[in-house]
Amino acid sequence: MSHEQHQELLQTLHECMVECNHCYSACLKEDDIKMMAECIRLDRECADMCNYLEQAISRGTPFISELASVCAKICEACGNECKKHDHEHCQKCADACFNCAEACKNVA
Amino acid sequence: MSHEQHQELLQTLHECMVECNHCYSACLKEDDIKMMAECIRLDRECADMCNYLEQAISRGTPFISELASVCAKICEACGNECKKHDHEHCQKCADACFNCAEACKNVA
Amino acid sequence: MSHEQHQELLQTLHECMVECNHCYSACLKEDDIKMMAECIRLDRECADMCNYLEQAISRGTPFISELASVCAKICEACGNECKKHDHEHCQKCADACFNCAEACKNVA
Amino acid sequence: MSHEQHQELLQTLHECMVECNHCYSACLKEDDIKMMAECIRLDRECADMCNYLEQAISRGTPFISELASVCAKICEACGNECKKHDHEHCQKCADACFNCAEACKNVA
Repeated sequence: MSHEQHQELLQTLHECMVECNHCYSACLKEDDIKMMAECIRLDRECADMCNYLEQAISRGTPFISELASVCAKICEACGNECKKHDHEHCQKCADACFNCAEACKNVA
Repeated sequence: MSHEQHQELLQTLHECMVECNHCYSACLKEDDIKMMAECIRLDRECADMCNYLEQAISRGTPFISELASVCAKICEACGNECKKHDHEHCQKCADACFNCAEACKNVA
Repeated sequence: MSHEQHQELLQTLHECMVECNHCYSACLKEDDIKMMAECIRLDRECADMCNYLEQAISRGTPFISELASVCAKICEACGNECKKHDHEHCQKCADACFNCAEACKNVA
Repeated sequence: MSHEQHQELLQTLHECMVECNHCYSACLKEDDIKMMAECIRLDRECADMCNYLEQAISRGTPFISELASVCAKICEACGNECKKHDHEHCQKCADACFNCAEACKNVA
């Protein structure tokens, strides 16, 4: 069953989505928000893609490979941006993104 | 932090979404698919709403109460439909839906 | 047929989603981005809800009334925030939001 | 501006999403629903992807090419399945899917 076979990936995507959305929300409250614009943008991009892929995998999409490949790219882009910033939420988000990128590559 | 405060609810929504999508996919393979049409329809309805609410809560939506209230209604409708069918995936899905409906009511 | 009966509403939701996402993206490029934080947040909130409702209506959701009622609230909140800002994208977005809020109320 | 530059594509995606969801809903009411299972599955798959890409493009995603490429594939798969069935909603959906696949390829 697709949803059992991919249980770990589903959880990884879920955690990445949560960290990205938390980082997004925290960035919008930072004083140096101007510096965080690209981080905000990519946080949303990555959260949306992870959220989408969670659904797609759990319904047994035949396009898991293609979707996971795009998701890995987006996670990496988001992780690379987050990594540049010292805020704890950015560093935690970067970890979640790189972790998720790896997991996605394994099914891509 | 919204995403920590609601960590349990986020997990409950995630699990309900996974069960609904699994039930959806399994129903489409059943021989008695004609009897499962309403179940398929509500499984998607419920998976989509739970998936949406997961994202909304994790980004700190100011509309958590209104959205959780609608989600509770949809979870209940899906659970009630699933409960009618003997397939194991339907019974498991019904449990996840009622569980999620309760969790949603607590923040609605 | 749900999708024909609601063709105008589907278009209104689509346009509101597009304006909100454009405003979101433009706000992230503004010099006074600090002042736009709430606008960015609500633009995403509103775009996501309109996008969700578009899908839900076009698949004939039985929960159109409940969902449209929440959507109207979110559109109004977003329109009220956008209205405060002189940027052309904010003013256009406010118009689209109020227009969409009205359309949603008609089916709520 | 991304949302103006891609206005036609946004409309094409919107129309494909609406047709797919209509076909999905109509298939669930057909007497020969067993024969329509794959059509139902791909209708949802395609509607979800088009709906996702609409949002992504209108917020100016940097991943438009990768996402449009996957969307084109999904639209083609859905169109090919719909084409097999004589129901009017299937034939109309197939047209919308092939049309959307072409539009996606142009930006992929």
